[in-house]
Amino acid sequence: MKRYVLIVAGGQGLRMGKELPKQFLPLAGRPVLMRTLECFYDWDAAADLILALPTEQEAYWQMLCRELDCRAKHRTVAGGATRFQSVANALALVEQPGLVAVHDGVRPFVTAALIEACFEEAERNGAAVPLLPMTDSLRETIGQGLSRPLDRRRFMAVQTPQVFRSEYLVRAYRQDYCETFTDDASVVEALGVGIHSVAGDRRNIKITHPLDLLLAEALLNNPS
Amino acid sequence: MKRYVLIVAGGQGLRMGKELPKQFLPLAGRPVLMRTLECFYDWDAAADLILALPTEQEAYWQMLCRELDCRAKHRTVAGGATRFQSVANALALVEQPGLVAVHDGVRPFVTAALIEACFEEAERNGAAVPLLPMTDSLRETIGQGLSRPLDRRRFMAVQTPQVFRSEYLVRAYRQDYCETFTDDASVVEALGVGIHSVAGDRRNIKITHPLDLLLAEALLNNPS
Repeated sequence: MKRYVLIVAGGQGLRMGKELPKQFLPLAGRPVLMRTLECFYDWDAAADLILALPTEQEAYWQMLCRELDCRAKHRTVAGGATRFQSVANALALVEQPGLVAVHDGVRPFVTAALIEACFEEAERNGAAVPLLPMTDSLRETIGQGLSRPLDRRRFMAVQTPQVFRSEYLVRAYRQDYCETFTDDASVVEALGVGIHSVAGDRRNIKITHPLDLLLAEALLNNPS
Repeated sequence: MKRYVLIVAGGQGLRMGKELPKQFLPLAGRPVLMRTLECFYDWDAAADLILALPTEQEAYWQMLCRELDCRAKHRTVAGGATRFQSVANALALVEQPGLVAVHDGVRPFVTAALIEACFEEAERNGAAVPLLPMTDSLRETIGQGLSRPLDRRRFMAVQTPQVFRSEYLVRAYRQDYCETFTDDASVVEALGVGIHSVAGDRRNIKITHPLDLLLAEALLNNPS
């Protein structure tokens, strides 16, 4: 079955005085986003990689790919104003039926084993996401500075890649955007498709906060 | 107002063939638990520190304190079979009215600023916990390998220290144990007390997984 991978890179542009978007931060000399793409290339060099990137970052990205000799062949499409729109734009390049992964550009520690597990589960059941048990206790905010407790055993943290049969994902992204769409699984299940899970990987971190970059460097120096 | 700090250290004993409990792992030569205690001592040397520790770990801990010259004066009490029982045991040493913090022994990066903020909020409002917005998307498991999405904006991760007026905490821990007690705040609010919040700190990590130890070492090498 044909395998597509949509990599979504967001972040605020590259204007003066702004921070460099997280996907361009160097990890041991190689940008986070390039590492992420290369994880998928190393998993399956025949997979069709499509990168959704803000238009204003395109020239900078092409320069990085040339200078650092990015080995992961990929196509780019213009990112949208929202993650939802970026995925919809990338989906326009999915021409054949198959399986489609959506992955955060800032998760550069995804393993071939996790990617393969998600694709296999999606092939069997149509939709698969990696889930991890919560480590922290959780509370729900209820206004006025107050909150109430939740039983964390019922809750799981969701990672990417999230993998779907292409017909589900294409149909899902024809829906109007809705505030409850927090990730691709939530868009697909609005069609009534059940979301299956595979065991997530704690090393598959999302580089969001400055602290995550510290952890990323430590992970690079301590391969599992 | 008199200030107490109850530090809870759990983990499986020190028997042959078992892993060393996380609280004894060395961070740059100093055990996690000793660093945690010293954070509170450095915040307020007059605070009354009480450590709940499994009985079988007591001799080992005393040896560590002697050898490494732990500067945080503290009393120890026997830990119970559950965290709930450990806190109840430590509370028996809280003889005067005041404010009582409960803190995880494996959170050695708590800052004086966060401790002080929690105590101040608890002095004003009776009960205060540090909360952080969720980074990950969340799903709720619904059985048969399926799950449903949740709006993460309503959910917060809870850290420690959790600080309470002593009369609330003492009364709370006279209740029978209940499965919904996931942290001290949940025990106190079963009395009907509202839980207030302060902004948590991403560096205030809980050392739970092997990955956390990598991050802890990186944090030590990169003070904020």
